[in-house]
Amino acid sequence: MASFQDISVSAAINILSAIAFLVAFAILRLQPINDRVYFPKWYLKGIRGSPTRSGGFVSTFVNLDFRTYIRFLSWMPAALRMPEPELIDHAGLDSAAYIRIYLLGLKIFVPITFLAFAVLVPVNWTGGTLETIKDVTFSNIDKLSISNVPSGSQRFWAHLVMAYVFTFWTFYILYREYKIMTNKRLQFLASENRRPDQFTVLVRNVPPDPDESVSEHVEHFFCVNHPDYYLTHQVVYNANKLAKLVEKKKSLQNWYIYYQNKYERNPSMKPTTKTGFCGLWGTRVDAIDYYAAEIEKLTEEEQAERERVISDPKAIIPAAFVSFKSRWGAAVCAQTQQTSNPTIWLTQWAPEPRDVYWDNLAIPYVELTIRRLLMAVALFFLTFFFMIPIAFVQSLANIEGIEKVLPFLKPLIERKGVKSLIQGFLPGIALKIFLILLPTILMTMSKIEGFASLSSLETRSAGKYHLFVLVNVFLGSIITGTALQQLKSFLDQAPTEIPKTVGVSIPMKATFFITYIMVDGWAGIAAEILRLVPLVMFHLKNTFLVKTEKDREQAMDPGCLGFATSEPRIQLYFLLGFVYSVVTPVLLPFIIVFFALAYMVFRHQVINVYDQKYESGAAFWPDVQRRLIIGMVISQLLLMGLMSTKGAKSSTPLLIVLPILTIWFHLFCKGRFESAFVKFPLQDAMVKDTLERATEPNLNLKAYLHDAYVHPVFRGGELEKPAAIDEEENNPLVPTKRMSRRSSKYGSDVSSEAGN
Amino acid sequence: MASFQDISVSAAINILSAIAFLVAFAILRLQPINDRVYFPKWYLKGIRGSPTRSGGFVSTFVNLDFRTYIRFLSWMPAALRMPEPELIDHAGLDSAAYIRIYLLGLKIFVPITFLAFAVLVPVNWTGGTLETIKDVTFSNIDKLSISNVPSGSQRFWAHLVMAYVFTFWTFYILYREYKIMTNKRLQFLASENRRPDQFTVLVRNVPPDPDESVSEHVEHFFCVNHPDYYLTHQVVYNANKLAKLVEKKKSLQNWYIYYQNKYERNPSMKPTTKTGFCGLWGTRVDAIDYYAAEIEKLTEEEQAERERVISDPKAIIPAAFVSFKSRWGAAVCAQTQQTSNPTIWLTQWAPEPRDVYWDNLAIPYVELTIRRLLMAVALFFLTFFFMIPIAFVQSLANIEGIEKVLPFLKPLIERKGVKSLIQGFLPGIALKIFLILLPTILMTMSKIEGFASLSSLETRSAGKYHLFVLVNVFLGSIITGTALQQLKSFLDQAPTEIPKTVGVSIPMKATFFITYIMVDGWAGIAAEILRLVPLVMFHLKNTFLVKTEKDREQAMDPGCLGFATSEPRIQLYFLLGFVYSVVTPVLLPFIIVFFALAYMVFRHQVINVYDQKYESGAAFWPDVQRRLIIGMVISQLLLMGLMSTKGAKSSTPLLIVLPILTIWFHLFCKGRFESAFVKFPLQDAMVKDTLERATEPNLNLKAYLHDAYVHPVFRGGELEKPAAIDEEENNPLVPTKRMSRRSSKYGSDVSSEAGN
Repeated sequence: MASFQDISVSAAINILSAIAFLVAFAILRLQPINDRVYFPKWYLKGIRGSPTRSGGFVSTFVNLDFRTYIRFLSWMPAALRMPEPELIDHAGLDSAAYIRIYLLGLKIFVPITFLAFAVLVPVNWTGGTLETIKDVTFSNIDKLSISNVPSGSQRFWAHLVMAYVFTFWTFYILYREYKIMTNKRLQFLASENRRPDQFTVLVRNVPPDPDESVSEHVEHFFCVNHPDYYLTHQVVYNANKLAKLVEKKKSLQNWYIYYQNKYERNPSMKPTTKTGFCGLWGTRVDAIDYYAAEIEKLTEEEQAERERVISDPKAIIPAAFVSFKSRWGAAVCAQTQQTSNPTIWLTQWAPEPRDVYWDNLAIPYVELTIRRLLMAVALFFLTFFFMIPIAFVQSLANIEGIEKVLPFLKPLIERKGVKSLIQGFLPGIALKIFLILLPTILMTMSKIEGFASLSSLETRSAGKYHLFVLVNVFLGSIITGTALQQLKSFLDQAPTEIPKTVGVSIPMKATFFITYIMVDGWAGIAAEILRLVPLVMFHLKNTFLVKTEKDREQAMDPGCLGFATSEPRIQLYFLLGFVYSVVTPVLLPFIIVFFALAYMVFRHQVINVYDQKYESGAAFWPDVQRRLIIGMVISQLLLMGLMSTKGAKSSTPLLIVLPILTIWFHLFCKGRFESAFVKFPLQDAMVKDTLERATEPNLNLKAYLHDAYVHPVFRGGELEKPAAIDEEENNPLVPTKRMSRRSSKYGSDVSSEAGN
Repeated sequence: MASFQDISVSAAINILSAIAFLVAFAILRLQPINDRVYFPKWYLKGIRGSPTRSGGFVSTFVNLDFRTYIRFLSWMPAALRMPEPELIDHAGLDSAAYIRIYLLGLKIFVPITFLAFAVLVPVNWTGGTLETIKDVTFSNIDKLSISNVPSGSQRFWAHLVMAYVFTFWTFYILYREYKIMTNKRLQFLASENRRPDQFTVLVRNVPPDPDESVSEHVEHFFCVNHPDYYLTHQVVYNANKLAKLVEKKKSLQNWYIYYQNKYERNPSMKPTTKTGFCGLWGTRVDAIDYYAAEIEKLTEEEQAERERVISDPKAIIPAAFVSFKSRWGAAVCAQTQQTSNPTIWLTQWAPEPRDVYWDNLAIPYVELTIRRLLMAVALFFLTFFFMIPIAFVQSLANIEGIEKVLPFLKPLIERKGVKSLIQGFLPGIALKIFLILLPTILMTMSKIEGFASLSSLETRSAGKYHLFVLVNVFLGSIITGTALQQLKSFLDQAPTEIPKTVGVSIPMKATFFITYIMVDGWAGIAAEILRLVPLVMFHLKNTFLVKTEKDREQAMDPGCLGFATSEPRIQLYFLLGFVYSVVTPVLLPFIIVFFALAYMVFRHQVINVYDQKYESGAAFWPDVQRRLIIGMVISQLLLMGLMSTKGAKSSTPLLIVLPILTIWFHLFCKGRFESAFVKFPLQDAMVKDTLERATEPNLNLKAYLHDAYVHPVFRGGELEKPAAIDEEENNPLVPTKRMSRRSSKYGSDVSSEAGN
């Protein structure tokens, strides 16, 4: 067990590295040359045009106003200042809801921390067990934990009561938060502008008809079964091949521009390239001519494919976007079953046009169920057996293996320094690569499962990642050994023994988790704000590819909130908080610092950086709630196990009530709120319809919806900007207080007025 | 372990008692005086008027035609002869579907039995393990079971392959059956006559409005949100008190008639009664006058209450039956969410008028969730701790206890014979009474849970009963000891140990279950057809109460299929079949005999006796399927446990695939078919609407629906025959082949032509 000093050292290191990141960020963000890396959102919104200012040439690249450097944490209050309604307007409800998860953490754990320090810490401190045991080295931290209370002591009543108090406090906050989020979502949906997806339903599994094309079949079906509401529909083309061609052409064009730029800067030397793989081998040719010819060839190919897709009836997949005359009609169609066979004519709300995952629209029902079965089995093996292939790779990736495969490297490797470096480095790298690839693997699995929108893919991946984190990070850290060994030991133990086994080692792992929180939470979050990878990428692109302002805009990589990976990671902090709130309350302040820091960082990022790919209206909130409940139940079971090993067996009946209450609370909240995130109530649809009919009686809805759901490759150059967003731009943000401060140094730079 | 001889003796006893019941039934049913007990369905249908025939006076009571007695099993082919479409017409889809469960048992187990006897019985028989062990007494039955195969033998491959074959065969049959049932249900719904519930939606949790009455509020809400489809609505009165008064009055009227009849038969003696409890004490008064006065008083009271309910706005509960202009409109409203708050304006398909459980319509959402939590906890305690109160009662109900409470019985009890009788009898009687009361207890629990229709109450009770049977009958028989002890031992064992513990004792319990099947299955089913209780009750009522033909009609008690208790019992037989099909195939023929006998008996009862209280259109089938899947998974886990104790540990990975496949199969079937039992597709609604509009363009739907959903007490005398059934009677059965055989002896007696 680490002593208080060890923790202090670790804390100092991590705090220093976090501060280093923050300082680096504070300096870099003030340089005009980095403006598009740290404030891309404002460029995308069209509010900020360029970082140019009145100073000399140098000051277009470097900020020379030294006063701004002094207050290097000034972005923090700036990030907090934007009121939430404006934030929702500015960045969407998804982002605002995501930030609220951190705020939720503060709301839950700040009062719990105060209470735990007021009650449990004195109770534990005066327990005096560890002092009587001579041969165990203990630290001050352990004296503050439940380990210091003697077995069978009456003091456990304090922990028991606190477990109840904490649970009910969490219930209260969770209920309130769910209610607030529900209202926010309903308000958001009610105040939304007209959008194509409000009128549209995605119909999948259109049955084949021998006499009619898919389009005719869809039209007839909905004309008959929704006669008063059916308006129009759009068939879906299988344009996956075309999309690949377009992608390829884009990459070639980048190279073409790169060589052209090179030539322009240095006209004396004509750039050349090799025709083979990645330009590494093959015959040497003139690069500009080569790429021009390649692009020419690809353009023709693309054109042919484009014509084939549009004319070939086989390129039409059995799915369609069906639009209705009113939101009411669409709400009805999305929520009802169309035919007696529930595997055909499946209707669901159409996702936003930019949220559609086009590749998955044509999977038949039977295939879908088989895919899900296979993915469930795969997830199980991935979670519990992922160490096996990694160990295998590790056994291969040794010095001898490399020498066999790549014999020409032998003289290099055989050198003493290099050899030991490789030997120390290789075993870890396989695991590291796996962990970096894991989100992609999980996302691929979700894609195979066949969900039709990016938002649902992210939600599903988040669920998988949560399981992985729970088993391999949380349980894996508490019970050392691989997940496979854990699984085996769990199967061989009585169900009542498992909470005991895990629970008993909980207090001993407190210091480990404190270090973990500081490394992964504090320093990790501070690194997030620095955006090192986008920073480097932007400057590379800017140097080699950018010619026009438009190119520069495309070189920006605002990124977006990675819900699929970061939400499950937050859940781990919640879980740690719940587990240790009664056992070792001294861990709680570290979690609070994490939540507070992350809240500020992500609020800043959401305001200034991230550009969400889609807007689901916080549809993920029920998942957040469910995983919080899972965390609570786990913590309650572990507490039960721990208590029964501490000679407080009589507490078990009292503690078993908690998980039952928690599950009931979950079902209660689910019934009370969840449908607001899944269904669209008819009353709300009717209100919007009526309002629209009164304000715009002559609206031509059919023309409006005409090509809302067209595969992005058919939109030509508008790949990144589908019609749905144009809508938003026609209604620019209402000039708020912040917007009117245009007199600030950066022109329209809204967030940097802190620098003044 | 019982020997083959023991089984034979038991079989003989049970077969004899079954035959005795069947003979008694064959004789009793042919007596004209019992005609209304054994053929009430035909009376209710109005097809059979009276059992009178052309013979003398005696032959109106006793059948003197001895030829009919010879073929005493002739009802069996008669029961089988009615084709299924006619059966559905005659008795409804619920009954037809219920009978198909037995048929499903035959379809699954007959081929399995043949295969098992062809493959597994020889493999087991030649295993030769039991012969080598000298000190264990074994019977021929054990030699046929898996116990006879030596540990670690290669012979287990046969069992493994058979487990797969049986599973896939069951999948095939279950899938086919689910598909057939789905089609039957859809056909049934499509061919149904116009019924009020097709146009009506039950709206619960109407929110209170300060300015409007419930009725106005409902009307306004649906006028606004379903403007094109809303037709009318009916508010619901809280008439529970009134219903009680009506019930009481009816019982008083029975007594009044009883005394009047008594007086008419013996005018010399005026009958008297006492005014106290049950006429046991109090002052002696003239019975006829007394009951006439009481009825008078109650009629006035009822009238006052009736007026109060109709005029008092507080008697209107916040629920309503809302009717729509078309089935399409109702289908839309039932399947969609109305407002953003999912706990108000809850809509669901209205149950049939006679299916409505009126007491439960006004429970608010929060109360409902609390009730369900409490009932879930109560069910857990009932299942696992029910022996505790019974043991307590047993300890009280001894000789000394009775002597203390009822000292005047002392001289009687003290007699030797009586004393030993009581001592032997009392401990068992508490358990017996509990088991008899159990269905009522479970039904009460379901009622507290707040479901709004009798059909859903029955389904819920069946689920609870299934759990009870599973834990206390199946597991309780295999592992001796109370459920509480089992629970404790399960909690203290590793999850992988439980299938082993249970699985290893499976083969030893085969003979016990064979006996159980014969007692509960064979003899129990044969007793069912005899209808001893209704027989006695009918003759009592007939003697004392009946004056007119209408009275006699009311004295009939046709009863109905007790889905809530009998379906879980069938599931036990399925479970036994699944478990023993691989382990001890010799049990299978006993199950087949049960299924065949039960199929015939219940087919006969459904045709001739039972009168269902409601018709849900086989809405219970998904539950049947789910419980069959549960049975399969249990059997697969137990086989896995058994195999691993038999030294065939390597089979575990192969056997673990089976439950995973089974669960996947369940999800697949659920997705494929379940919605046909839960939702009403818009296409079908549209077809029916269109057809109706074409055939009856001038239908006055509003008048038709006017008082369809009125609390039965407001219907006056028509308590047992609500409007919905009238509809059916206006369209009498099409005269089929069977109906036209009116030349048979019993006039319109359809089922007894076998007696000719």
